[in-house]
Amino acid sequence: MSDAAWLAEPPLLGWQQRFRVRDRLFDQRSAYQRIEIWDTVPFGRALLLDGAVQTTQQDEFIYHEMLVHIPLVAHPNPRRVLVVGGGDGGCLRRVLEHSVREVVQVEIDGQVVAACRQWLPDISAGAYDDPRCTLIIEDAVNYLEGPGGAFDVILVDSTDPVGVAVPLFTERFYRAAVKRLALGGLLATQSGSPLLMAGELGRVVRLLAVHFVDVGVYLANIPSYPGVMWSFCLAGLSSAASRKSPTSAVSGKGRRAIEGRYYTPELQQAAFALPTFLQHLIREPAYGAATAPVCAVPVKSPFD
Amino acid sequence: MSDAAWLAEPPLLGWQQRFRVRDRLFDQRSAYQRIEIWDTVPFGRALLLDGAVQTTQQDEFIYHEMLVHIPLVAHPNPRRVLVVGGGDGGCLRRVLEHSVREVVQVEIDGQVVAACRQWLPDISAGAYDDPRCTLIIEDAVNYLEGPGGAFDVILVDSTDPVGVAVPLFTERFYRAAVKRLALGGLLATQSGSPLLMAGELGRVVRLLAVHFVDVGVYLANIPSYPGVMWSFCLAGLSSAASRKSPTSAVSGKGRRAIEGRYYTPELQQAAFALPTFLQHLIREPAYGAATAPVCAVPVKSPFD
Repeated sequence: MSDAAWLAEPPLLGWQQRFRVRDRLFDQRSAYQRIEIWDTVPFGRALLLDGAVQTTQQDEFIYHEMLVHIPLVAHPNPRRVLVVGGGDGGCLRRVLEHSVREVVQVEIDGQVVAACRQWLPDISAGAYDDPRCTLIIEDAVNYLEGPGGAFDVILVDSTDPVGVAVPLFTERFYRAAVKRLALGGLLATQSGSPLLMAGELGRVVRLLAVHFVDVGVYLANIPSYPGVMWSFCLAGLSSAASRKSPTSAVSGKGRRAIEGRYYTPELQQAAFALPTFLQHLIREPAYGAATAPVCAVPVKSPFD
Repeated sequence: MSDAAWLAEPPLLGWQQRFRVRDRLFDQRSAYQRIEIWDTVPFGRALLLDGAVQTTQQDEFIYHEMLVHIPLVAHPNPRRVLVVGGGDGGCLRRVLEHSVREVVQVEIDGQVVAACRQWLPDISAGAYDDPRCTLIIEDAVNYLEGPGGAFDVILVDSTDPVGVAVPLFTERFYRAAVKRLALGGLLATQSGSPLLMAGELGRVVRLLAVHFVDVGVYLANIPSYPGVMWSFCLAGLSSAASRKSPTSAVSGKGRRAIEGRYYTPELQQAAFALPTFLQHLIREPAYGAATAPVCAVPVKSPFD
């Protein structure tokens, strides 16, 4: 195969991963972004938005299970859930595995939903036809600032903060989201590669800390994403003494145990066990501003 | 920079990562392998053996801490430790952070030790000068089958099973190692990428299961290694009811808590929390023979 048969996102900090590809199946510009579907050798079909891999047939379950199951198991009784973004439907599908009453999905780009229902139907797996779901094609900030009831859990399944997703990584978005959370509500969001996109995780943690009492960072390994190791944030409005911190919560008694293809009940806690250097990095005020080598640690090792 | 300024290992299953490089600092053929030191943009200096990245200045601490601290904390009283391979000295250095009496390192290729002491002195950080250490340049199978005392812990810090390391992935090696383990002894080994090198992990788990009662697989994220997510195996000769399984053990009371730059006491257990699909993959008899896509799961999801 020639070099042209590689698919790659731009390198980050001098690090790049790439995949052999067979063909591009779909290529369209919407009002918001370029939407592509590629047939890749390692991961089957992949959705790209503005050149960045969003999800693939082979490893979508990792991202979606970890974005959904961790917060929905941490919440004692999630009945009404909001999904921001998530046009491929993989998030929606996992929310429906919980005993929820209603799921609202607010996605800005209807063409992403259409492309995924045509080219990646296995990811939503019929979720959009479930009577508990309402799909709204709208800007999420507008939606959150408008009228409407409160949510037990808000899940932010967005692209990284470039282009259309920039408003989802702002003070205004989180302020609006907090106002729409019910008592004891939780917000979870993907927050990028903790090493290659330190700016994204650093920014999300700082914004969440303004509004939420309890902010935790957890990890999953997603082979099609830059750097593989990926971060998520889980934030709670209260750390009421009557219940465990959401970032260490385990499934309530009497609830069905969730067992995914990636997610396990052990990972509900283990995913929050961050390596020391990452705990230090996240606490550094300058974290995210650095363009230092991948594992640069601004603290001395306790053994040095 | 031109395309020639990328350093990459051969792709695996259509997946490849590569690093920007500044210069090659060292290139020598020993009797066993080609030894190179590169100056890379994301990781600083990197040691390559036969073209495969072994360790880098920036992320060596992840691999070495996880290969050493997990078994040495799991063992109730590690006094005499054997390191097989590990010519860069990073493993040796971490063993010395525990209250051990003696460490023997058996490395087949003295030129690797010399190259690392010259070009990567920060990795061993003086460990070879410690009076508790004995460095032996010899084939490890010969050494193990010869005379000598028993070890509490044997650590296998080898290349993947290509070329010089092939004998370390055989029935003969493990049989010899078991004979040199003291009562309650533990063996830990790196075992490759669980997704991109399924053959290596599958083979190690099967070989260990022949001789050891308790075999556990644990993970760490090493950004310079193919696929980032990396596996290790910890095997114990007994699962005596009087103590916890080594794969779930925590540091004994009264011992100094180890806190590394990656390793934390929480990771002593959390690193063994494997995603469901990996638990299933490892149990599959055909695991390792497959050349299927990266996350191919031979079992149906419980939700399908």
